[in-house]
Amino acid sequence: MDSCVIPLRHGGLSLVQTTDFFYPLVEDPYMMGRIACANVLSDLYAMGITECDNMLMLLSVSQSMSEKEREKVTPLMIKGFRDAAEEGGTAVTGGQTVVNPWIIIGGVATVVCQQNEFIMPDSAVVGDVLVLTKPLGTQVAANAHQWLDNPEKWNKIKMVVSREEVELAYQEAMFNMATLNRTAASLMHTFNAHAATDITGFGILGHSQNLAKQQKNEVSFVIHNLPIIAKMAAISKASGRFGLLQGTSAETSGGLLICLPREQAARFCSEIKSSKYGEGHQAWIVGIVEKGNRTARIIDKPRVIEVLPRGASASAAAAPDNSNAASEPSS
Amino acid sequence: MDSCVIPLRHGGLSLVQTTDFFYPLVEDPYMMGRIACANVLSDLYAMGITECDNMLMLLSVSQSMSEKEREKVTPLMIKGFRDAAEEGGTAVTGGQTVVNPWIIIGGVATVVCQQNEFIMPDSAVVGDVLVLTKPLGTQVAANAHQWLDNPEKWNKIKMVVSREEVELAYQEAMFNMATLNRTAASLMHTFNAHAATDITGFGILGHSQNLAKQQKNEVSFVIHNLPIIAKMAAISKASGRFGLLQGTSAETSGGLLICLPREQAARFCSEIKSSKYGEGHQAWIVGIVEKGNRTARIIDKPRVIEVLPRGASASAAAAPDNSNAASEPSS
Repeated sequence: MDSCVIPLRHGGLSLVQTTDFFYPLVEDPYMMGRIACANVLSDLYAMGITECDNMLMLLSVSQSMSEKEREKVTPLMIKGFRDAAEEGGTAVTGGQTVVNPWIIIGGVATVVCQQNEFIMPDSAVVGDVLVLTKPLGTQVAANAHQWLDNPEKWNKIKMVVSREEVELAYQEAMFNMATLNRTAASLMHTFNAHAATDITGFGILGHSQNLAKQQKNEVSFVIHNLPIIAKMAAISKASGRFGLLQGTSAETSGGLLICLPREQAARFCSEIKSSKYGEGHQAWIVGIVEKGNRTARIIDKPRVIEVLPRGASASAAAAPDNSNAASEPSS
Repeated sequence: MDSCVIPLRHGGLSLVQTTDFFYPLVEDPYMMGRIACANVLSDLYAMGITECDNMLMLLSVSQSMSEKEREKVTPLMIKGFRDAAEEGGTAVTGGQTVVNPWIIIGGVATVVCQQNEFIMPDSAVVGDVLVLTKPLGTQVAANAHQWLDNPEKWNKIKMVVSREEVELAYQEAMFNMATLNRTAASLMHTFNAHAATDITGFGILGHSQNLAKQQKNEVSFVIHNLPIIAKMAAISKASGRFGLLQGTSAETSGGLLICLPREQAARFCSEIKSSKYGEGHQAWIVGIVEKGNRTARIIDKPRVIEVLPRGASASAAAAPDNSNAASEPSS
């Protein structure tokens, strides 16, 4: 499970908490703070929890930065983290900071809640569909953006992507990673979600497999569609790394993968798009729940949905890709 | 405060939690795990909290270690952490592990409790005495032990200490750091403690000053006695580092500094010694609470209580040092 759930000594309450920390992958310290916070909270959101009682921040400042750099960067990271926490309706009340060769940022999210506030991720049934709430390809985009300044690596991918496309994809990835999965968590209750996980380090396949293993029913997950930030699939192929089309590419602060009753999924997708945080927020039906032995797989030749960055030109933004929001897989 | 206290949405309950992480300072990975856990829990114990509902472990394995070294060291650190958590009546249910240039170990301790389970560290009154539950000098001992293999540094201190004394002090420091402050936390309730803090990175003076600042009454803390692991004061002087006698030497997983009513302090000290975890556990009256402006200081020429390591010879162990447990400062 993404979070731990501890029954408490007091009246039917449970303690749910999670921790995450990692290294910066975007250059903007403020956005990095937001991303780190969104990534920590995401584990609660994956359980349909929309409130958080407390956050702690974990931080290391880099010993290889000058005092001046530290003084500029650290407050911005902290502000980004705090702002995202505030957007999540919570606050940061403590934490720990150390000096380290590398920058580390992360946190701890904790909530005490009643049984009906969270959805245990174990009740998928045959016939459910799988919905994904953010496009894949965040780490590919972050890496490709670094390669703009690395001729050797850039040469490997420049045939499939332009510098401008990388720049746009990077901005899109950064925006997506900094977006809270809170709306999705709230809609999980509205539309009777049966189970969910967030997509992070193990990629969509790894997290699907983890989720499948935890199911009470004999089910398996089959993924047909891969919504991917435009051009990132091509970069993944050209570079021979990542495994984005195999579902093994790591994501940071990825979307929720949610098992929903088939008849609810389309409405879930349209609701998320029209929610107040819905600016550009989209969800896709990416697969189905079959009878099976608690495994997950991606079909041969999955359909890649190229998700155009918001910064792309208006005509491009109106391309057919966006119409997939509520389409069902044709398995 | 050492922990954050968050009022919850549910019936008068509070969430108390704390996090700490740092770098190894002893060579034994199992003991390092225990020390890290004791250090995290200590922030709860400083508030008189004896139960912990959940722990998370924060870990980074070092990229400069071989696969083989990692496979040997990491499970031992984890086991040490888990064993100490179990001794504290709690369990580790989650966490996060990353790769980093340096090893990091730490954790998060969380408890949901009622008002009467914790003691806010703000109610010291004039006439209270200050009790310390572990001797100072842990980081001096850890450093001196490293210097055994560093001729340049060893030369600076070899006139004041023997190799065997350093070895014994190191063992003593390791044992003390791995000891939970749980008994002391429990006795804080028995003997009506008014405030407490644990002694870690800011040294006894720094933490006393922090504690003094938080007091509701106009009080100041004056420290007369410094219980220090034998020979560590001499090393601190000879090396010109640490500031152990000035109270600024950092400690790891140090003892609690507790403001107790004068008439209770001697009994507190004798109880802690006879408790079931009391093997060698000792407490000292180190200072008093005066009328003042919420500051803390150490008197000129404080009395240094040389605390003999348990490994020292039997005749040495019976030396007068141990009789200071319940003696009051002669201010």
